[in-house]
Amino acid sequence: MASTPAAPAQHELFQQQFTYLRERHDSYLQKVLSEHAHATRLQQAMQYSSLLGGKRVRPFLVYATGELFSVPAENLDAPAAAVECIHAYSLIHDDLPAMDDDTLRRGQPTCHVQFDEATAILAGDALQSFAFSLLAQPLPDIAPEQQLRMVQVLADSAGLHGMCGGQMLDIEATGRKISSAELEQVHQLKTGALLRASVQLGALAAQDVSDQIHNALDEFAHAIGLAFQVKDDILDVTSDTQTLGKTQGADQALDKSTYPALLGLEGSQALLEQLHEKALHALALIPYNTALLEGFTEYLVKRDR
Amino acid sequence: MASTPAAPAQHELFQQQFTYLRERHDSYLQKVLSEHAHATRLQQAMQYSSLLGGKRVRPFLVYATGELFSVPAENLDAPAAAVECIHAYSLIHDDLPAMDDDTLRRGQPTCHVQFDEATAILAGDALQSFAFSLLAQPLPDIAPEQQLRMVQVLADSAGLHGMCGGQMLDIEATGRKISSAELEQVHQLKTGALLRASVQLGALAAQDVSDQIHNALDEFAHAIGLAFQVKDDILDVTSDTQTLGKTQGADQALDKSTYPALLGLEGSQALLEQLHEKALHALALIPYNTALLEGFTEYLVKRDR
Repeated sequence: MASTPAAPAQHELFQQQFTYLRERHDSYLQKVLSEHAHATRLQQAMQYSSLLGGKRVRPFLVYATGELFSVPAENLDAPAAAVECIHAYSLIHDDLPAMDDDTLRRGQPTCHVQFDEATAILAGDALQSFAFSLLAQPLPDIAPEQQLRMVQVLADSAGLHGMCGGQMLDIEATGRKISSAELEQVHQLKTGALLRASVQLGALAAQDVSDQIHNALDEFAHAIGLAFQVKDDILDVTSDTQTLGKTQGADQALDKSTYPALLGLEGSQALLEQLHEKALHALALIPYNTALLEGFTEYLVKRDR
Repeated sequence: MASTPAAPAQHELFQQQFTYLRERHDSYLQKVLSEHAHATRLQQAMQYSSLLGGKRVRPFLVYATGELFSVPAENLDAPAAAVECIHAYSLIHDDLPAMDDDTLRRGQPTCHVQFDEATAILAGDALQSFAFSLLAQPLPDIAPEQQLRMVQVLADSAGLHGMCGGQMLDIEATGRKISSAELEQVHQLKTGALLRASVQLGALAAQDVSDQIHNALDEFAHAIGLAFQVKDDILDVTSDTQTLGKTQGADQALDKSTYPALLGLEGSQALLEQLHEKALHALALIPYNTALLEGFTEYLVKRDR
């Protein structure tokens, strides 16, 4: 069922669900980030950076994967918000003057511009803690062993062996020519790890998912993780700042290795198509209704921001 | 048993155990921080900042509290290292130019001086993730529900409602006169929350600890948490840079509110004594052998660094 192009009805279903789940996620995160307050300025910075826009790709993957196995959305709110908090914290820190030194994010001033550097560092730090607090709260329908596994998956995907490690490799690769294999490793850690974790979190919220299905999901996540970055690199070259909501050409300006720089635009587009096929192939191995994840894959490779 | 001054034998027992547990912690953390490697520079920065010295007060509290209830040390290694990783990350970020801008820590160049700012930000971030990865790993003798609770306790103590929140309040209080109540709130969040979490983690690693004992332990942790900070403030004024291993007079130079500034040296010393008594009183309510925690309290208020 995954080998034919997405039909218009499927595209529409995806769009509806994508919007619905984004709004569901945003109101959940808004609620939990408003509870109690000790340090108003810090809380404001956390809210500012996590609630003002964003595609919510990672929460979507948590929800859509969980829904494959009929996990009620109520059980997915916390894991979805947890992974988004990790993503939001990483953006705040990536934008800092000592890192990418970017002033625009999602069409708004970055956190350290809107507040100040110290507040931005702390807001990122506190969002990371908040992710684990959300994920470890009592979730009645998930077995504690599974939930602990979710914490570990998220922590590993975020740290030395995941996102932070990829970010470090990315910095080290800046200004020198790297191979396609090295670039893939950078992205599989920097962006891919958290996207894979999102899919795993959705599956871990379900009972009795077979190893075979876990593997197919991971193959899917692996492919879309890289596709996501290839597409981002292409957009950084072909789009404009207003559409992107972040500075166009930023990668080039920073002399970062990108797929267009390595493979050219056409080569990058061909790789994107390959990864698209690979993702759909992996979904075809899963004996559940994967229409939503197919629609998402379609969206991922065709988006203009 | 807690109301008489610590006898020489008790002091010696404490010193032996304090040293033994510090070494145990250090070799565990060394081991787990050396496994696999994706990003060598990042891993080096994490090791540099977490393994070079440090009193290991927080790991000690995890071990010593767990030992009250005869929890084997093997079950406490991961929680002890987890809380220390949170502490180590917070020091790296606190020392950054945008925060306290400090160049010396534990007698060594701070992380951003030894490496660079971007690496220091990432090393802090990755140490935080690592803490939760350690704490969520399968720990066979701890019930998964208890372990999840440990994750939540650590996350809450580190984030908006704990350490990060306190750090933000501390920054906001810099340069203006604040009340004794405000200063206590700053410290109860900034330093106290993680010390309380250390004690809680040790108790959560045990089975069937009564609410009454949990409360007494929390009262103890509350008192030593504040005592720790009062003593730090006193040392910042009375000690020298070489003994401290960090810049003497740094708080004053940054125009931070401190207990000596608010209560004078004598007033601060009197408060420290009160808190000492309070801590011993709380321990006296616990029907287990609390000699090690008494010895620690004694050490805490008498240390010269």
